[in-house]
Amino acid sequence: MDIDAALFDVFGTMTDWRSGVSGELASVGDRVGVRADWHAVTDDWRRKYVPTLGAVVSGAAPWRSLDGLHRVMLDEVLAERGLDAIGEADRERLVLAWHRLRPWPDAPAGLEMLHGSPVITSALSNGGVGQLARLTKQAGLRFDCILSAELARTYKPDRRVYLRAAELLGIEPGRLLMVACHPDDLEGAAGAGFRTAYIPRPLEWGPEAAPVPTPSDVDLVADDAVELARALTG
Amino acid sequence: MDIDAALFDVFGTMTDWRSGVSGELASVGDRVGVRADWHAVTDDWRRKYVPTLGAVVSGAAPWRSLDGLHRVMLDEVLAERGLDAIGEADRERLVLAWHRLRPWPDAPAGLEMLHGSPVITSALSNGGVGQLARLTKQAGLRFDCILSAELARTYKPDRRVYLRAAELLGIEPGRLLMVACHPDDLEGAAGAGFRTAYIPRPLEWGPEAAPVPTPSDVDLVADDAVELARALTG
Repeated sequence: MDIDAALFDVFGTMTDWRSGVSGELASVGDRVGVRADWHAVTDDWRRKYVPTLGAVVSGAAPWRSLDGLHRVMLDEVLAERGLDAIGEADRERLVLAWHRLRPWPDAPAGLEMLHGSPVITSALSNGGVGQLARLTKQAGLRFDCILSAELARTYKPDRRVYLRAAELLGIEPGRLLMVACHPDDLEGAAGAGFRTAYIPRPLEWGPEAAPVPTPSDVDLVADDAVELARALTG
Repeated sequence: MDIDAALFDVFGTMTDWRSGVSGELASVGDRVGVRADWHAVTDDWRRKYVPTLGAVVSGAAPWRSLDGLHRVMLDEVLAERGLDAIGEADRERLVLAWHRLRPWPDAPAGLEMLHGSPVITSALSNGGVGQLARLTKQAGLRFDCILSAELARTYKPDRRVYLRAAELLGIEPGRLLMVACHPDDLEGAAGAGFRTAYIPRPLEWGPEAAPVPTPSDVDLVADDAVELARALTG
């Protein structure tokens, strides 16, 4: 595939948000003395993501950073589950759990392989620039560039995010590849003229989750980030 | 020094623009069959940088990318030196010489040392985002983040560039360190509330250039990027 840069989704595609966030929720719960199914709380939190960000994309809600939106969503989830014992300082700390996620095991090696190739790699995430810099550094995810939906003041899958990334890289959309485990992200990218690569992440929502069907309208399907790097450099 | 992130100037501080650009000018000259003192042509080109970018900062000229400004400056220099034989395609290629610079010998190792520390590293350059991604990748300069004056639509040493970087990183200016070999860059950063570190680059303008006096009003002076990393992590 003749491309100049590969842009990666981060939450779900390169990092395992569910273990990281539920682990931090559990440790706050232990300390505060409240019990809950922390995986279910985490899933509730994440399920609010698409509608909450969608309201910003549609213009129904004003632009706000992902940290700010994560806080609003967390307050809703804790209220719905009667977890009011978790106080202000812990809520602030829990928002930052999304800055400290672990990578999927293949993700660092795949990025290192691409770093050694002519293909430029970048994050292209709904996370903020600072959040992504911290997250990718501590997770050992070596990107050549950090790009965020924040730079377009909207969120994926709004096509303006992908077009802004193309503009900032100075690369035409047809020579850019979006890599994600979320079909809606790839559809948004394709709508902006990007090539698309799908990586399945069957454990994103935990081992019990229903399998996501592989989208048929993508340019490439790779089992993981190392397979993707092989396909792009081989 | 208690900081969260170190932001680096790139042209001059981490890369040797003079050898890279004059080498590409010389090879174009050879091919076209024109002779000139290519170091002097390069120095002329670079001397136009401060007034040309200054006109954007003051509002006298509209915002334009650094590639666009480099092209305007190159056309001026070639006209002044009677080098009209260098044609359109070569001029476009020469602008991209600023995307392919070599690092100073200590720069990659200094950044690797900081990568292994809790301090976030970022470029903060007048180069564009795409230019910086390409340049730092091929030069082996490992930054955790890429930030550009382009994201503030002005140029250093305009304090809005530093404030925009602080905003995007989500870090207060007093916990950010600007690293540069140019006193005006450090003054601009200090004006935005940043800490400042000076690295002398006595060869920036070639071995014959007059020495630059070390500025006295900075927080740290380090001989090179490795010494800086030692000072920040030791």
